[in-house]
Amino acid sequence: MSKKMEKLFIVKIGGNVLDNEQALKSFLNDFAFIKENKILVHGGGKIATKIGEQLGIKSNYVNGRRITDEATKDLVTMVYGGLVNKQLVAKLQSLGCNALGLTGADGNAIRATKRSVNEIDYGFVGDIAPNHVNLSLIQSLLDQNVSLVFAPLTHSGGNVLNTNADTIASVLATALCKYYDVRLLFCFEKNGVLADINNENSAIQRINKETYNELLANGSLADGILPKLENAFAAINEGVKEVLIGHANDLIKNTTDHTIGTLITK
Amino acid sequence: MSKKMEKLFIVKIGGNVLDNEQALKSFLNDFAFIKENKILVHGGGKIATKIGEQLGIKSNYVNGRRITDEATKDLVTMVYGGLVNKQLVAKLQSLGCNALGLTGADGNAIRATKRSVNEIDYGFVGDIAPNHVNLSLIQSLLDQNVSLVFAPLTHSGGNVLNTNADTIASVLATALCKYYDVRLLFCFEKNGVLADINNENSAIQRINKETYNELLANGSLADGILPKLENAFAAINEGVKEVLIGHANDLIKNTTDHTIGTLITK
Repeated sequence: MSKKMEKLFIVKIGGNVLDNEQALKSFLNDFAFIKENKILVHGGGKIATKIGEQLGIKSNYVNGRRITDEATKDLVTMVYGGLVNKQLVAKLQSLGCNALGLTGADGNAIRATKRSVNEIDYGFVGDIAPNHVNLSLIQSLLDQNVSLVFAPLTHSGGNVLNTNADTIASVLATALCKYYDVRLLFCFEKNGVLADINNENSAIQRINKETYNELLANGSLADGILPKLENAFAAINEGVKEVLIGHANDLIKNTTDHTIGTLITK
Repeated sequence: MSKKMEKLFIVKIGGNVLDNEQALKSFLNDFAFIKENKILVHGGGKIATKIGEQLGIKSNYVNGRRITDEATKDLVTMVYGGLVNKQLVAKLQSLGCNALGLTGADGNAIRATKRSVNEIDYGFVGDIAPNHVNLSLIQSLLDQNVSLVFAPLTHSGGNVLNTNADTIASVLATALCKYYDVRLLFCFEKNGVLADINNENSAIQRINKETYNELLANGSLADGILPKLENAFAAINEGVKEVLIGHANDLIKNTTDHTIGTLITK
């Protein structure tokens, strides 16, 4: 049965690519070139921080996570849902890709629950479950050859909520893998999961659960890559067949069988 | 044939309602209550001006129209496409209305051409033709019982473009009236087209082309209402059956045959 499923690429694009005009242009060209069903998920944290500073909204972080107070909620709604999302959509349109931007609020695409306050009050932050994805809406748009562009925003109870873009990508992959042959791609400014953080040519070709545990035991992985790997295996454990961690420049190759990033499988 | 067409209400909401929390809440409740196909079109000029001031972006107007330079383009993309649009969508979702926000760039919903520079360079402003509306996308979403919320933004050549919200509403009505029984509603803070500008109870019940010409000849209409009437008759001349100009508080009544605003017909 799975052989009959259509392919779907869910591509998370990292902040360092968004912030680099030339890298972004090249990346969007490649994304537009993909012929199969495709979804782009973006962040925009640095742009939000910059505009926030101009508006006198201070960025507060606890353990590397942004605290989303009321002013910050409005800021990220503007920047992620408006500025970044619509600029990406307009650029993709000009490249012949019929893109449509969504936040989780639009069409109830991704419903969340506001994170409960324990030791830390993260504010207007949304946590999501895969069964809170509006599959029929997403399928109907993909069926019309529309490519979706998701801002890292969800909603609950009348509020827009801030949600990590990697998580959005991972939850979409998990929700959609029952209906599509999904490859989830985390595209960033490195060639993949590096065996040696100082050697860009040391990308590990394949990681499965067994080798992942070995790598963890070795302690040889860079700290920065660990959350991405956790997110990747969370998706794999929920039925996503393939997760690819690779360089934004290699998007096209990494949508084929001849991947040059790190392919993560069960 | 026209009796078989489904009803579609296209509702333009004025800036004075958007800026008044209580009025907006009541209006959104009423909009969510409408059971038929519906589209909301919003502006957001005052909010854009306020945030622009905080960001050091000066609002420039010529003949009452905003000049959209590069910085203003980014500003309105953020404010109209992000802040205002997504707040409206999230609030409607919490009222049980499955709203989905769009700019003209999304799904190529409304393609425009950047206004050519004659005496005045309006900047990134988009002019639209009704045949540049993506009907199949809009119909497919309405068919899924999704209510659309349009920001006053179009697109062309990779750019988001600023477009007057009344014009967006009028063009949508014109494009969709071949497929739906469309009533276009301009909702604002007055009871309709007033025969006497100083008397809120003097709303004219009905205006057709003949009485419109008489009113123009009389010179009895307030200047502020003239652009709205021009927009209304532009839609009527292109086949829209009914345009209603009325108070935001009267939205529900004005979606019935017992209208209390000004009903404009051929």
